[in-house]
Amino acid sequence: MKLSTRIEACALSPIRKFHPYVVEAEAKGRKVLHLNIGQPDIATPAAFFDAVRNFEEDVLAYAPSAGADVYLKAVRDYYKTLGVELALGDILATFGGSEALQLALTCVLDEGDEILVPEPFYPNYATFTGAIGGAIRPIPTSPEEGYRFASRERIEPLIGPKTRAILVTNPGNPTGAVLTEEEARLLLDIARERDLFLISDEVYREIVYSGEALHSMLKYEDGAENVVVIDSVSKRFSSCGARVGTLISRNQHLISQAMKICQGRLCAATLDQAGAAALYRSMTPAYCQEVQTEYRRRRDAVVEGLEKIPGVSYSHPEGAFYIMASLPVDDAEKLQYFLLQEFEDKGETVMYAPGQGFYATPGKGLNEIRIAYVTNPAELARAIELLGLGIAAYNRKNGRQ
Amino acid sequence: MKLSTRIEACALSPIRKFHPYVVEAEAKGRKVLHLNIGQPDIATPAAFFDAVRNFEEDVLAYAPSAGADVYLKAVRDYYKTLGVELALGDILATFGGSEALQLALTCVLDEGDEILVPEPFYPNYATFTGAIGGAIRPIPTSPEEGYRFASRERIEPLIGPKTRAILVTNPGNPTGAVLTEEEARLLLDIARERDLFLISDEVYREIVYSGEALHSMLKYEDGAENVVVIDSVSKRFSSCGARVGTLISRNQHLISQAMKICQGRLCAATLDQAGAAALYRSMTPAYCQEVQTEYRRRRDAVVEGLEKIPGVSYSHPEGAFYIMASLPVDDAEKLQYFLLQEFEDKGETVMYAPGQGFYATPGKGLNEIRIAYVTNPAELARAIELLGLGIAAYNRKNGRQ
Repeated sequence: MKLSTRIEACALSPIRKFHPYVVEAEAKGRKVLHLNIGQPDIATPAAFFDAVRNFEEDVLAYAPSAGADVYLKAVRDYYKTLGVELALGDILATFGGSEALQLALTCVLDEGDEILVPEPFYPNYATFTGAIGGAIRPIPTSPEEGYRFASRERIEPLIGPKTRAILVTNPGNPTGAVLTEEEARLLLDIARERDLFLISDEVYREIVYSGEALHSMLKYEDGAENVVVIDSVSKRFSSCGARVGTLISRNQHLISQAMKICQGRLCAATLDQAGAAALYRSMTPAYCQEVQTEYRRRRDAVVEGLEKIPGVSYSHPEGAFYIMASLPVDDAEKLQYFLLQEFEDKGETVMYAPGQGFYATPGKGLNEIRIAYVTNPAELARAIELLGLGIAAYNRKNGRQ
Repeated sequence: MKLSTRIEACALSPIRKFHPYVVEAEAKGRKVLHLNIGQPDIATPAAFFDAVRNFEEDVLAYAPSAGADVYLKAVRDYYKTLGVELALGDILATFGGSEALQLALTCVLDEGDEILVPEPFYPNYATFTGAIGGAIRPIPTSPEEGYRFASRERIEPLIGPKTRAILVTNPGNPTGAVLTEEEARLLLDIARERDLFLISDEVYREIVYSGEALHSMLKYEDGAENVVVIDSVSKRFSSCGARVGTLISRNQHLISQAMKICQGRLCAATLDQAGAAALYRSMTPAYCQEVQTEYRRRRDAVVEGLEKIPGVSYSHPEGAFYIMASLPVDDAEKLQYFLLQEFEDKGETVMYAPGQGFYATPGKGLNEIRIAYVTNPAELARAIELLGLGIAAYNRKNGRQ
């Protein structure tokens, strides 16, 4: 039975494909420390569970297709605290940031159309784009330049007749880079001049480390036609399993078209929207501060560890909870197999997400890895120590210093 | 800003587009009785809410991309009661039947590919197909033939080089038709002979009225490569807002490709999967019987009412909770506007889903409507009475008898 060429061309998740080797390593009694997944261990605020427990209807009915009123209003009021005024009609409730992305891409791309995405990027962008027959045109960056990409010289030559949008993650996954005010403004200027959508994935908004004002592309009054924001409660409130996100745009034509799909899939989950609304309602500056502080400690633990490994270079994350690092090895995937199959130190080994899957350009990211720092500092320090020991053992085995 | 031609070509939901006129009618103090939506008023079993309330984790974490173990096992064991043996790896947890459909279509269709669907059909099939650049080729039926379609003469001439699948709803929405054993077998034979997927949407499985054994296309041992089943807790357990569905296939290649998207969107909602698992675990023959009996009473109330309206013909539903009826009017959409804007009887009027949106063939379904019988028999009887009065008033106004 033939399947669609589009789905066949999509890659398996680079974050999940080593799973069978983990099972094998664990069967041998090894403990695998995880740097590969973006699942925080921070407790979900009680407000979510309280709202869900207090749901009093007899029938768990469909919510409105655009979103439950209680959720849309909570999102609107949350954005007000950022200085962004939204109408309820600018907001759609979605199944996580994931569905918001799928909706935006479906509204924007026809077969063969392109979006510009700075690479390395969140690999699922490629899956969602490829699954509907679109293509990612990567904006190149380099670890040496701190993965920065927002300049006219770099972006404008890539815009062609099939380019429909620029898609950015800010704060960045996997690089941890945060756009400066000038960079954000420049991206919008380019989008406006070239009639492109600017799709801004801002799910890590609160996780920034320099005390800067929280940013949304929605703050630009002149971006109404171009800006589409992807948002989610997953990372902000450590509630990944709720699967409640948001598509936001003041472009009413885009919203009305996205509504066709929203009506088609009927609604996002009713109870989880109630829980997500309560999360926004319960949000305080103190809570955000606490989360920021915790992630800063974790970042510092990872950075301190990486500093001790000879030949490693890495981005110094300004936000989100990832570090992109380049290792003194020939191939980070080969190293990962080695770490899971041959290496151990006191019964432990380590796992990360190899960098290749974060690039669209063939051959790039070969010796890079993404580290997610979502566990406690002591465990992170040990994981990075294992990485260093593993690199040394791997290079010894292969006759390299 | 240009949006994709694909999304622009999708239609708005025929079930929702009259919403502004309802608001207007209600503002004038009129009560609108709803025959238009498939939202049952039957209480969701307490097992769902208990499971959700008893969730004890501190972190609402991602579930596995394929589905939470507790949910997949509950689905597998439920199918065992139907005589269908499944491996856990045949089952994917999805955001309602809706996402299962989207996944199946994405795996099967490239730009311009076609699926055969008996019309009238669930309008969202067209939205999901169109949004990814595929096309529906309708298998024609007629109210006079009870909307039956499963014959070689009718289907085989429609199969062309771009045909990739046959998609059926069984029991049928909007027709209420249930495939006979011979019809089901024939569909699979055609799919096998012509190398097509047979996508079978079975979300109304338990809602049948003739005491027949519950059917799934998965029961055919020789259908492993071709059969893809769409399922959901929504209608079975009156839990539409849970948004938990299932894609099932023994075709492991299809499952592995669908997994790319599942990994991309990370997972279905964690709490709702726990609730859905509890629903399946709590399911008893007595519960199904009770639900069947209730819907039979409702169907009978509608049929009794329709019998009294001169010139109406309709399908006698064998399953699901819809009736497709053809009315003695020129245009059911015009009648709907009339009912909402000009008509009332003792302050009340009525709303249905006009038939046109359930057809792909232009001009078909013009005087047809879909009635959803999801409220109590007394209210349904009154709604059908209003329909009869409205038809008479409309035809009088237009100088027809």
